[in-house]
Amino acid sequence: MAKSKTISLQKFLGVELPIIQAPMAGVQDSALVVAVSNAGGLGSLPCAMLSLDAMRTELTIIRTQTDKPFNVNFFCHTPPEPNAEREAAWRAALLPYYQEYGIDPNDIPTGPGRKPFDSETAEALEAFKPAVVSFHFGLPPADLLARVKAWGSKILASATTVDEARWLEARGVDGIIAQGLEAGGHRGMFLSEDLTTQAGTFALVPQIVREVKLPVIAAGGIADAKGVAAALALGATAVQIGTAYLLCPEATTSAIHRAALRSEAARHTALTNLFSGRPARGIINRIMRELGPISTVTPAFPLATAAINPLRAQAENRGSADFSPLWCGQNANGCKEAPAAVLTRELAVDLK
Amino acid sequence: MAKSKTISLQKFLGVELPIIQAPMAGVQDSALVVAVSNAGGLGSLPCAMLSLDAMRTELTIIRTQTDKPFNVNFFCHTPPEPNAEREAAWRAALLPYYQEYGIDPNDIPTGPGRKPFDSETAEALEAFKPAVVSFHFGLPPADLLARVKAWGSKILASATTVDEARWLEARGVDGIIAQGLEAGGHRGMFLSEDLTTQAGTFALVPQIVREVKLPVIAAGGIADAKGVAAALALGATAVQIGTAYLLCPEATTSAIHRAALRSEAARHTALTNLFSGRPARGIINRIMRELGPISTVTPAFPLATAAINPLRAQAENRGSADFSPLWCGQNANGCKEAPAAVLTRELAVDLK
Repeated sequence: MAKSKTISLQKFLGVELPIIQAPMAGVQDSALVVAVSNAGGLGSLPCAMLSLDAMRTELTIIRTQTDKPFNVNFFCHTPPEPNAEREAAWRAALLPYYQEYGIDPNDIPTGPGRKPFDSETAEALEAFKPAVVSFHFGLPPADLLARVKAWGSKILASATTVDEARWLEARGVDGIIAQGLEAGGHRGMFLSEDLTTQAGTFALVPQIVREVKLPVIAAGGIADAKGVAAALALGATAVQIGTAYLLCPEATTSAIHRAALRSEAARHTALTNLFSGRPARGIINRIMRELGPISTVTPAFPLATAAINPLRAQAENRGSADFSPLWCGQNANGCKEAPAAVLTRELAVDLK
Repeated sequence: MAKSKTISLQKFLGVELPIIQAPMAGVQDSALVVAVSNAGGLGSLPCAMLSLDAMRTELTIIRTQTDKPFNVNFFCHTPPEPNAEREAAWRAALLPYYQEYGIDPNDIPTGPGRKPFDSETAEALEAFKPAVVSFHFGLPPADLLARVKAWGSKILASATTVDEARWLEARGVDGIIAQGLEAGGHRGMFLSEDLTTQAGTFALVPQIVREVKLPVIAAGGIADAKGVAAALALGATAVQIGTAYLLCPEATTSAIHRAALRSEAARHTALTNLFSGRPARGIINRIMRELGPISTVTPAFPLATAAINPLRAQAENRGSADFSPLWCGQNANGCKEAPAAVLTRELAVDLK
C-alpha cells in the first residue's frame, strides 16, 4: 500500500518522497527548503512573516540552489479592524510583565505582524512560479487564487475539519493538508473558531480521505518513519512534518527554542492564542501557565503579537523562554540534530 | 510488520486478532463480549455500573457462551467526599431544566453512580478468573492488584500520557492501553486533571511505545481496517476499539444514541464533564451546548450523574437526547450496523 501512495505523490507533485516539510514562519528560511527539496522531499518556504523583498531574496536563493519542486506558503486571514478596547485589555493583562522588565507600555508599537496573501504578493510570486503554493486559514480571494493556478502552481490548503476540506475542494485546490490536533504552530481552522471541532490526526485523516476526491496530506504528530507509514496506511498520499525539522542545522530555530525542544518540557504542549491571537500549539512556558494558554482578551489575529514582542525580546536577551512562542507539535520525539536531507530520507525509509 | 504484531498479540493474550473491543459501560453487556471473543478478538465486559450480582450473571453468561479469552473492566477512582456546596451549585445550574420538565429538585437522589474495584469485587471476580482484567483511572490498591495477578489474569490499564504509562509499568501491569484524545467515553487520566496533557493517538502511541517495554494497545480514533493497520505501523501490539461497535445488534446502545451516531451530529464531539464529573467524549447535545461542555460546578466524579439522570430519563421518554451522554469518539465513520463478529473480522482484514 505504501508503495502505490509514493507513486501517486510522484505523479501529483513530481516529488520523489511523500514528505512535505511543513512551512514554519519564524524558524526557517530558504536553507531548509533547499535541503529538503534536494533530498527528494518537498521543501516549503513560509512567507507569512516576510516582506516582499525578503521573499524575493529567499526565492532567488532557492532557485539558485535547487531545480527540484518546492512549496511557498502564505496565510489567508482577513486583517482585523483594530479594537482599542481589546488592545487595552491585552496590555493591562501584560502590565505586570512590562513592569517586571521595565518596559514602558507607551513605547510598544501596534499593528499586524503577519500579512495575508494579496495581489502585490501574487505579482512578486509570479516571477518564480513555484511548483506548489500552499495556504493556511482558508484561501485568498477567487481572482488571486485563479491567478496562481493560471501560471501552473499546484495549490495545497489546510483543513482541520471535514467541512473545511469540502469547502477547499469546492474552490479548486489540488490537495488537502489534513491538519490533526497534534500539529505544532497555528491551527489552520477557518470555518469555525470552536476548538471542539478540532480532531486528532487518527480521526481526521480517514474522514477527509473518505469525503474528498483529492489527495490528502496528513499532518500532526507524525515524527518518524513509522509515523509516515501509519499515515499512508490511513489513506494519506503524503505527510507534512514540521516539528521533526526544528533541530536541523538548516532551521533558524533560536537557541532558546532548541533548548526547550531538547528538554522534557517538550512533552507538554498546549494550544495558545497569547502569541498571535489565534490558537497555535507550543511548549508550555511561563506566560502560558500564568495567563492560561487561551485568553479571552487577546486582540484578533495577528494583532496580539505586537504587545508581547518587547517582552519576548527582553526575556530572550536574558536567556529566558518565558515569553517566546515555542511552537512544537505533540510529538517532539522525532526531532533530530541531523542535516535535513538525512532526516528527510530517514522519514521515508520504511517505504522502500 | 503487521503480521509479526499479530503473532505477538497471540503470544501475549492468546487472542487470534489484535482487536480489543473497548469496554463501554452503559451501552453493552455480555452479548457483545461473547460475539467479539468468539470471532477471535478480545471482548470486554465493563463492570463500572454493574452490581456484583449483575456482574456474576454477565460473567456466567460469557463462560457459558465462549471458551475464548475475554476482558473484564473496572474503574479505579477514589470515591470523593460529598461536597454540599458543589452539589448545590450543580443543582442550581440544572434548575431551569428541572423546571422545564416539572421535576422537583428535592426528589433527586444523591450518591455515586459508579463503584471502584474493591475487595468484594475481587472476591466475586475470582470465581471466574478471566484471562484479562483491565483498569481505567489508574489501578486498584496494591494488595487487590496482587490478588488479581495471583490468580493468573493479565492486567491491562489505560494511560493518557507517557507519565501514566511509566507509572503503570512500575506497578506491574502486563500491557498499556494508550488512550489517544480521539477516544470516546471517559478519559482514563489519573495523574493530572489538566486537559492540555492529553495527546492525540498519533502522538501518544509512539511516545509510549518508546518509553515502556510492555505491549502497547492503541485506542482513540481507530475505526476501520486501515486504522488498525496504521496503529500497528506506529508500534502498537493491538488496538482497542469502542465507537465502531456501538451500532452492532449485540450492543445495548439506546435508540436515541444510535440515531445520534447515524447522524451528521456524530461528526462533532467534545470532552464534557457534565454527565459524571470527569471529562468524557460524546456527541454535542443541548446541555453541552447550553452549559458549555466543561463546567466548573459539577460535583466530583461520579457524583454529577445523580442530578442529571432524572432529566435524561424524562427527555429520553420524550424521544430527546438533550440530556443523554452520547459517548462517541472523534471518528464515527467505522460504525456498522453489522454483527460484532463481522465487524471484528473486517477490522483485521488488512492484516492477512
